[in-house]
Amino acid sequence: MRIGVVGAGQLGRMLGLAGLPLECGFRFLDPSERPPAAAVGDHLRAAFDDAGALRRLARESDVLTYEFENAAVEALAEAAGDTPVWPPLEALAAAQDRAREKRLFESVGIGVPPWRTADDQPSLERAVAELGFPAIVKTRRFGYDGKGQRRLRGPDDLAGAFAALGEAPLLVERLVDFEREVSVIGTRGGDGSRVIYPLVENVHRDGILVSSRAPAPLPDGDQALQREAGRLLAALLDALDYVGTLAIELFVAGGRLLGNEFAPRVHNSGHWTIEGARTSQFENHVRAVAGLPLGDAAPTGHSGLLNIIGRHPPLAALLATPEAHYHGYAKAARPGRKLGHVTVVADSSPARDAMMARLETVIGKPETATRPL
Amino acid sequence: MRIGVVGAGQLGRMLGLAGLPLECGFRFLDPSERPPAAAVGDHLRAAFDDAGALRRLARESDVLTYEFENAAVEALAEAAGDTPVWPPLEALAAAQDRAREKRLFESVGIGVPPWRTADDQPSLERAVAELGFPAIVKTRRFGYDGKGQRRLRGPDDLAGAFAALGEAPLLVERLVDFEREVSVIGTRGGDGSRVIYPLVENVHRDGILVSSRAPAPLPDGDQALQREAGRLLAALLDALDYVGTLAIELFVAGGRLLGNEFAPRVHNSGHWTIEGARTSQFENHVRAVAGLPLGDAAPTGHSGLLNIIGRHPPLAALLATPEAHYHGYAKAARPGRKLGHVTVVADSSPARDAMMARLETVIGKPETATRPL
Repeated sequence: MRIGVVGAGQLGRMLGLAGLPLECGFRFLDPSERPPAAAVGDHLRAAFDDAGALRRLARESDVLTYEFENAAVEALAEAAGDTPVWPPLEALAAAQDRAREKRLFESVGIGVPPWRTADDQPSLERAVAELGFPAIVKTRRFGYDGKGQRRLRGPDDLAGAFAALGEAPLLVERLVDFEREVSVIGTRGGDGSRVIYPLVENVHRDGILVSSRAPAPLPDGDQALQREAGRLLAALLDALDYVGTLAIELFVAGGRLLGNEFAPRVHNSGHWTIEGARTSQFENHVRAVAGLPLGDAAPTGHSGLLNIIGRHPPLAALLATPEAHYHGYAKAARPGRKLGHVTVVADSSPARDAMMARLETVIGKPETATRPL
Repeated sequence: MRIGVVGAGQLGRMLGLAGLPLECGFRFLDPSERPPAAAVGDHLRAAFDDAGALRRLARESDVLTYEFENAAVEALAEAAGDTPVWPPLEALAAAQDRAREKRLFESVGIGVPPWRTADDQPSLERAVAELGFPAIVKTRRFGYDGKGQRRLRGPDDLAGAFAALGEAPLLVERLVDFEREVSVIGTRGGDGSRVIYPLVENVHRDGILVSSRAPAPLPDGDQALQREAGRLLAALLDALDYVGTLAIELFVAGGRLLGNEFAPRVHNSGHWTIEGARTSQFENHVRAVAGLPLGDAAPTGHSGLLNIIGRHPPLAALLATPEAHYHGYAKAARPGRKLGHVTVVADSSPARDAMMARLETVIGKPETATRPL
């Protein structure tokens, strides 16, 4: 099975590492010179919207997928021809437009914070007047890792906010006073079968995911939240007639789940599944797009994930910690850049937390970029 | 860390899959056109004893290793120059000569069946007269997967045996009436640290490994055998000042361990460690040769491994068995050829055996080559 992938970052690299044992071969389209995934497949160097390159990728693949959320939907749809594209491009289009994403969430019963769209400074001000402070304003397109966002705490932040983001259209939403950030990840096969991973608790810093814990250490082992998250994910997967792995980021606010955003791909908060689940999110994505049966998503223990951000870790010291599993992405260091991740799997939630605390002292502080929020 | 590997078969492929997350890059030397490991690194197509190609591999690598037991010791030693070669070539040379291997075993206290060398039909007959029937005669060099062996049950088998093997020198040994075949695998780092995996029980058919179980289901959970195997392996590793992963195949005969042969590399009977141990034999080999600390070799459960031999499995049916993990080698089918393996990890030994029995019915019988034994 030849799988063509738009994007060749670390997600592509891990898809390749998971798919090669299933005898899948990979070809990646990416404009970078030496992208992380080039180590596990052929690299077709071209812009993401290069029609000729996309057509070649389609021609030389049995199925197309993408690991880059800003893949060019229309160019990809046109180039694909008879080659199936999974996940469906409708999911990608929805994920690329925050307003469409909110409407999709609402249509399948995923609650969202109150929100409005805005196209200029006056409409932004009207929206905030209706929603109240604090609010958050985001570009509707091309936002990731906290980029293209601005927090509005009061009128001072609002003045000039539109100009500062420098791009329309925008989406404004009421800033939620949440207790936790969680994500739920699952995979759907072409036959409608689904597997759902345990709820993950996430910690962000400067808009970037810093650490994840799975199963999420919920107060009093709250199984109701896990069930509810699974129900919402299943509804979204079915509504999109989805094939592949999908992640929803959610807030827990007042004990309820509120949808923040979703990613129609494997997700950083699911990287723990490589060691911590019977079948990883990467392998299940490959199985789904290749038309193979899905694998067991059951956790093998209590997993923790720490992202390596901005600065390479001291590898020998890191691996001297016997419980640490390292996954480097073969990327040059730069503040705010994800360079790798470390996972641990423990027999209990407190043991996991103790391992993570030890590892954090070895790795040092993530070097996130300093950006206005 | 750039690792140059002599050989690009499935062992190289799995070394690459394990080493890429540690940010190691791989270059493989192999005469095949499209060898399995080419998917995870650069492929330098040349004969194993091509001095120029070996020199280039050495020049472009920080460290050299080998995954092919019949690598050319002298050519490799000469080409390496200042580039370290791990495991030490002394280990490779001993593994390539069955007489040297037996002497090495004896020197570190590993018991072996009575054995003699032979160089022609008369010396072969003298050896068998001393050892008695049944015996087994093997070429001293280049034997693997039961190739270059002949069983001598009585005088009829002895007549013409030398001519049938067609190669000197030979080694004859008394055929052991063993209860089980086991293997013990471990890794030694450059700093002398060692990790040892649990004892594995192996089943061979026509000289090829068909299945493995780890930890070996020993009668009454015999911990003494496990300890003894670990002690013998440690002695061998230290005697060779070894760096990398090494496997010893042993017989359990009369409750005692007898050395059969060793492999100075990752070993088929250790493939279960990818899912079934905290750190796989492949990752530990990479860590050792790259000068990184070794990882935990503790098992995560009761593992089983089934080799896919001669015929590709029905992949969808195989993966529909939720506990199955498939590892394909991207090789064309041919009787007697190892094409992939499947592993399971269970909570108990009986649960593991039940899973393996189910999988065996899905996979079908291994198609081993029919050869005279």
